[in-house]
Amino acid sequence: MARLKARARRRKRLRAFPRWGNLKNMIVALLVSLAVQAAPATVPPAPSDPIEADWRTIPDDELLVMTLAGNRTVVIRLATPYAPEHVANVRRLALAHWWDDTSVYRVQDNWVTQWGDETEKKPLPAGIAPRPAAEYDIAAGFRPAQRMTASDAYSGASGVTADGWAVAGGKPGAGSVAEGSPGWLAHCYASVGVARDASPDTGTGSELFMPIGGSARRLDRNYTIVGRVIEGASLLSGLPRSDAPMGMYATAAERLPIVSVRLASDMPAAGRPRYQYRAANNPRFAALIAARENPKPPTIGLGGADVCDVPLATRRAP
Amino acid sequence: MARLKARARRRKRLRAFPRWGNLKNMIVALLVSLAVQAAPATVPPAPSDPIEADWRTIPDDELLVMTLAGNRTVVIRLATPYAPEHVANVRRLALAHWWDDTSVYRVQDNWVTQWGDETEKKPLPAGIAPRPAAEYDIAAGFRPAQRMTASDAYSGASGVTADGWAVAGGKPGAGSVAEGSPGWLAHCYASVGVARDASPDTGTGSELFMPIGGSARRLDRNYTIVGRVIEGASLLSGLPRSDAPMGMYATAAERLPIVSVRLASDMPAAGRPRYQYRAANNPRFAALIAARENPKPPTIGLGGADVCDVPLATRRAP
Repeated sequence: MARLKARARRRKRLRAFPRWGNLKNMIVALLVSLAVQAAPATVPPAPSDPIEADWRTIPDDELLVMTLAGNRTVVIRLATPYAPEHVANVRRLALAHWWDDTSVYRVQDNWVTQWGDETEKKPLPAGIAPRPAAEYDIAAGFRPAQRMTASDAYSGASGVTADGWAVAGGKPGAGSVAEGSPGWLAHCYASVGVARDASPDTGTGSELFMPIGGSARRLDRNYTIVGRVIEGASLLSGLPRSDAPMGMYATAAERLPIVSVRLASDMPAAGRPRYQYRAANNPRFAALIAARENPKPPTIGLGGADVCDVPLATRRAP
Repeated sequence: MARLKARARRRKRLRAFPRWGNLKNMIVALLVSLAVQAAPATVPPAPSDPIEADWRTIPDDELLVMTLAGNRTVVIRLATPYAPEHVANVRRLALAHWWDDTSVYRVQDNWVTQWGDETEKKPLPAGIAPRPAAEYDIAAGFRPAQRMTASDAYSGASGVTADGWAVAGGKPGAGSVAEGSPGWLAHCYASVGVARDASPDTGTGSELFMPIGGSARRLDRNYTIVGRVIEGASLLSGLPRSDAPMGMYATAAERLPIVSVRLASDMPAAGRPRYQYRAANNPRFAALIAARENPKPPTIGLGGADVCDVPLATRRAP
């Protein structure tokens, strides 16, 4: 039954490119469904719908608030447990207000938007680790990073990563990964990675990028991911592309000024943004993944869900 | 040896986010390498580099030229063999100049840019098939669409798809796919798909979309792909996102006017754009795929290449 509902929802989701006439019908259907949902006794929540207890507070020191010219705001959740040294650098840079008056200086089509100090000459504040550890590969063992199935990554209470990140999580007994091993963060749209030179330990966290197109799995465990944009990603993805080498904006006029970057914990308590994330260590999230699975053989697919196709929900705290 | 070179090149490619200082070094290195490449006797072409014979002419009636406001041009190659009925509709629409004065009316972040007639009320020209066949699934058999490995899709002369599209091609003896079966087109960045209502046979080809973010494999064989943007994709991907439902631009001012859409074969011969594509049925392309493969177990990956990470080259005819 739950399975059937999940399939029904997937089918709905596949109707992804409706035209206007259909959109009107959908709005009508939405209003009808809202009316139906007002009668909970007859329509119990689907297993993939979050309940209130699934929402967890994101700590203030994991929220990075970037204000762009034009009073546009991008909010990043920091991935503290996955890249502790780089995240420590990012926190110090924010506390020093180092990014103020820097810019978004690179937009390479189908690749990345990148920001920081385009001159690379701005001195870093005291306490910044110049060569943090290689935190792009912290998994205890090796696991296929290319796909994640409902039956391994999110099969239930055990072995499930519980922090709401896009991870290829550990499964008890799968390969050489011990239960509870952290897995790693995948490069997906809206991930925030550490730009660096050719040598993998040369990124401090001062120059950051966000994938804006199709991300290749070959980036995973190769670049350090320090967070994920949870609000305003479209402000970074919707910028004009540069035809210059590497997509670097060729002129100052193209660059988008960064007014400030602040840790929420460094802002006046009254003005802090407050966010919650949807926990993944529960059967409702497992059902959500199941609903995202590709068809299995002998139909048309390999089964499994595309790791970047898993919706990771956050919301402003009610 | 070839394998080692491919690995060396892959390593280079992974250095994808250099900073300015490194960019300068790269430019110097590029100049040096150009100097070296001027001495072909000492540096033979790598097996993945195309030779002149790998470049094939794209027929004029497979080139769709869309001129946007501001004299910006998007060029689409039509996928004639994969969706013949939909492509026939597209050709008729172009020959009737039907798209003139329509618009790009939808930009949904991390999903699609869509264009055509946003009112859906503009009458279609005579001869348009109102419900073309379901050309989103034409493969003779079933194959995993999620991954493509150098050793199956592009292993050599036999079973290799030869048209330079992003396809999960057939391999002799693999599963139930017969040699020469066409495979199918994957939804990748810059693919051009047919928008439709919920019912899969409701898209005529008048409303088209291009994926602009991470594309999910679950779209493959579900929506009809009629082509691929081979020039100017960034003009469609770099547009401001809409926050309105489905990413539809809410106001006329947001919509980007389409001045005209023409088949190259319908343009004066002297003014036609001429393009070539890189053929894929050769060992040089197979080596390119091999260089794009993810690491195999027991290192960090599953092996195989991400289907959307395979670079499909086109160029203006010299």
